[in-house]
Amino acid sequence: MIRVLKGHIVSAPRLGELDVVENGFLVLDGGVIRGVYDRLPAEYAAAPLTDYGDCLLMQSFADMHLHAPQYPMLGMGMDLPLLDWLNTYAFPTEARFADTDYARRVYRRLASDLITNGTTRVCMFSSLHTEATWILMEELEKAGVTGYVGKVNMDRNNAPGVLEETTEQSVAETLRWLDGCRFDHVKPILTPRFTPSCTDELMAKLGQIAAERGLCVQSHLSESIPEMEWVRRLHPECERYWETYDKYGLWKDHTLMAHCVHSDAAERAAMKKAGVVAVHCADSNVNICSGICPVRQMLNEGLWVTLGSDIAGGAQLPMYKVITATIRTSKNRRIVDDWQTDFLTVEEAYYLGTTSGHRYFGAGEGFAPGDKLHAIVLDDSDFPESGKPLTVRERFQRAIYMTHRHNIVAVWSDGRCVVGE
Amino acid sequence: MIRVLKGHIVSAPRLGELDVVENGFLVLDGGVIRGVYDRLPAEYAAAPLTDYGDCLLMQSFADMHLHAPQYPMLGMGMDLPLLDWLNTYAFPTEARFADTDYARRVYRRLASDLITNGTTRVCMFSSLHTEATWILMEELEKAGVTGYVGKVNMDRNNAPGVLEETTEQSVAETLRWLDGCRFDHVKPILTPRFTPSCTDELMAKLGQIAAERGLCVQSHLSESIPEMEWVRRLHPECERYWETYDKYGLWKDHTLMAHCVHSDAAERAAMKKAGVVAVHCADSNVNICSGICPVRQMLNEGLWVTLGSDIAGGAQLPMYKVITATIRTSKNRRIVDDWQTDFLTVEEAYYLGTTSGHRYFGAGEGFAPGDKLHAIVLDDSDFPESGKPLTVRERFQRAIYMTHRHNIVAVWSDGRCVVGE
Repeated sequence: MIRVLKGHIVSAPRLGELDVVENGFLVLDGGVIRGVYDRLPAEYAAAPLTDYGDCLLMQSFADMHLHAPQYPMLGMGMDLPLLDWLNTYAFPTEARFADTDYARRVYRRLASDLITNGTTRVCMFSSLHTEATWILMEELEKAGVTGYVGKVNMDRNNAPGVLEETTEQSVAETLRWLDGCRFDHVKPILTPRFTPSCTDELMAKLGQIAAERGLCVQSHLSESIPEMEWVRRLHPECERYWETYDKYGLWKDHTLMAHCVHSDAAERAAMKKAGVVAVHCADSNVNICSGICPVRQMLNEGLWVTLGSDIAGGAQLPMYKVITATIRTSKNRRIVDDWQTDFLTVEEAYYLGTTSGHRYFGAGEGFAPGDKLHAIVLDDSDFPESGKPLTVRERFQRAIYMTHRHNIVAVWSDGRCVVGE
Repeated sequence: MIRVLKGHIVSAPRLGELDVVENGFLVLDGGVIRGVYDRLPAEYAAAPLTDYGDCLLMQSFADMHLHAPQYPMLGMGMDLPLLDWLNTYAFPTEARFADTDYARRVYRRLASDLITNGTTRVCMFSSLHTEATWILMEELEKAGVTGYVGKVNMDRNNAPGVLEETTEQSVAETLRWLDGCRFDHVKPILTPRFTPSCTDELMAKLGQIAAERGLCVQSHLSESIPEMEWVRRLHPECERYWETYDKYGLWKDHTLMAHCVHSDAAERAAMKKAGVVAVHCADSNVNICSGICPVRQMLNEGLWVTLGSDIAGGAQLPMYKVITATIRTSKNRRIVDDWQTDFLTVEEAYYLGTTSGHRYFGAGEGFAPGDKLHAIVLDDSDFPESGKPLTVRERFQRAIYMTHRHNIVAVWSDGRCVVGE
């Protein structure tokens, strides 16, 4: 079961570090990484070798926050602020996923678009529909995308007659959904939409289910100022947004919180203390005018920061686009901070979109021995002629800015070659 | 010579206005627009008709600021500020265009990438090399790109031994270059790189040539704070950056000034008074941390604002990407202005990337009768299924965010179908 891959091997094991092995060898044993070598150890000389030639063999991407049922509305309604946008676009769009045939078609396309763009791990919101959520999980599984999917819970302030569930329905459907999840690579995660969408009773029940079944939780936090004011009105007993999750047992190790744009120092400290993971969604934050997230500060404080496309607040599914959006947001943050804050380098943002996300699923740093392989093979030979020999690091930087789906000629997910074999 | 085009016709005649004619007819006479009609007038019933079916027939784009010889470095060196970036990347890259074979290959590729992405008009910086500049003009001409190209003038603070010219060389080569320009669709424009690159003597001479030959001028203005401080040190006699151009006759009607990020109210008033055109380069401004340009304010003050990709400070050649970058910058400006400033809508940013630029070349508003046709035909049929019938306006919005080159199935430039015939 030994197999050798050859190419220019690029990984980001730690923030700001890029490991480059030019013309290197990556040895797999049943899809599990044995090691990365600049010369092939003699013991593997007879193993089958796939030569990716002059291509880059890079870590694949982890998209830690996106709304699958919003994929059909990508690029539309970008002229509305968050709460109006939810009511006018997001809720009616999600409501259509009561139709399982429609769900099948959209989710098959989404799964294909994810994997061919090199996103091999996801943490994803579905809609409130149980059947459509199973379909989403099945289509991801078939395409080779791995990770977590959540049936959304939302029993208040939703869209009456369009997209609503009672507390009882929400709990009962969550249990039915959990009991029906039987997928190898796609697992369930509890998904209260966000505090304004969930009654105290529902939140308490979800906290209980999370504890009983040992499930992770994902939701939204401090995305926009009007949203935070709304949460404050709904929960006058809580000083900060995060406490509305904490009081029901949803604020715990590995809880994923999307955005955190306006989390103050105290809220950020609470994240770090609990082991809550921030999902920074740079494109979404600017598209719906949420704010300019202080990611460098979060990193300096030792927070665990990952990246999300946040489809369809975000308008770009490919994570290499999300990575450049992240860099741009950090540069805008630098400008706003009177050029005092360091922006994120390409290497740093790539780490956030790869290793930092993959670690959520138990993976190690970069191409760590013992991990199942998650990788893309990138052919940049159709990029414009550079006029001088480029280092692999320069080619890597250019690839992050210039890649299009067709440049990704192979994708490995969970040790399997799922594209390009 | 009458010819009829049929499709969903979309144009932005004025800021914030979108003209949509569903299943409309655009009538051409020798490539010149006769009119746009919702029903075909009887007199054209026998004319040959090209039916673009369910495609969008939209205005093509005008890229009003880019550096052709920086195309090979796109996506590299994005971690440096403007002045370091110039010395480390831009100058050595431009220097390679002394090699005319290399210039031919790069410029052929650039011209092809421009036209296939729907950019039919440009105002472009070449390098200081006369031969390479002619080659650039010839390759644009062949590909069907129209507009202005400038041999760059730079006789101080350049890259000694790498990229330099004396004042005498600069003037003599400019005259030799001008005398050798014989292209139908690509015309010369005078191009002092920016004030720090040009001696007073050279500036004065260029002002004289501009007046004598009736030539337009393009340069850079108030892009970054360190650059402006440098200009102030070089020209203590000038209160503001713009005066360094004005004193040599280069600040005049139709002078193009890239960036203007930090132009204050007085400088903006001087632009308006003189008829100077601002080229906003949203992607470049964030990539090299220049600043967040107050475009809404410039528009409110009645300035003429156009858009530029600013390759390779900008990392995105397609103007539909530049348009979404412009929207995002305006949204960041809104956030920074405490949510008080209106962002640019898709329709507004599209106007800036089309009509506002085309007017520079004498065109009218939108698809104006009497103008030669500049248009793209956009096939969005491979976009994800939307789940509801979309209006043409919604499809237009989505197309601006989601288009890739392969969706542009035909391009018309100066009345000729140059792609897809």
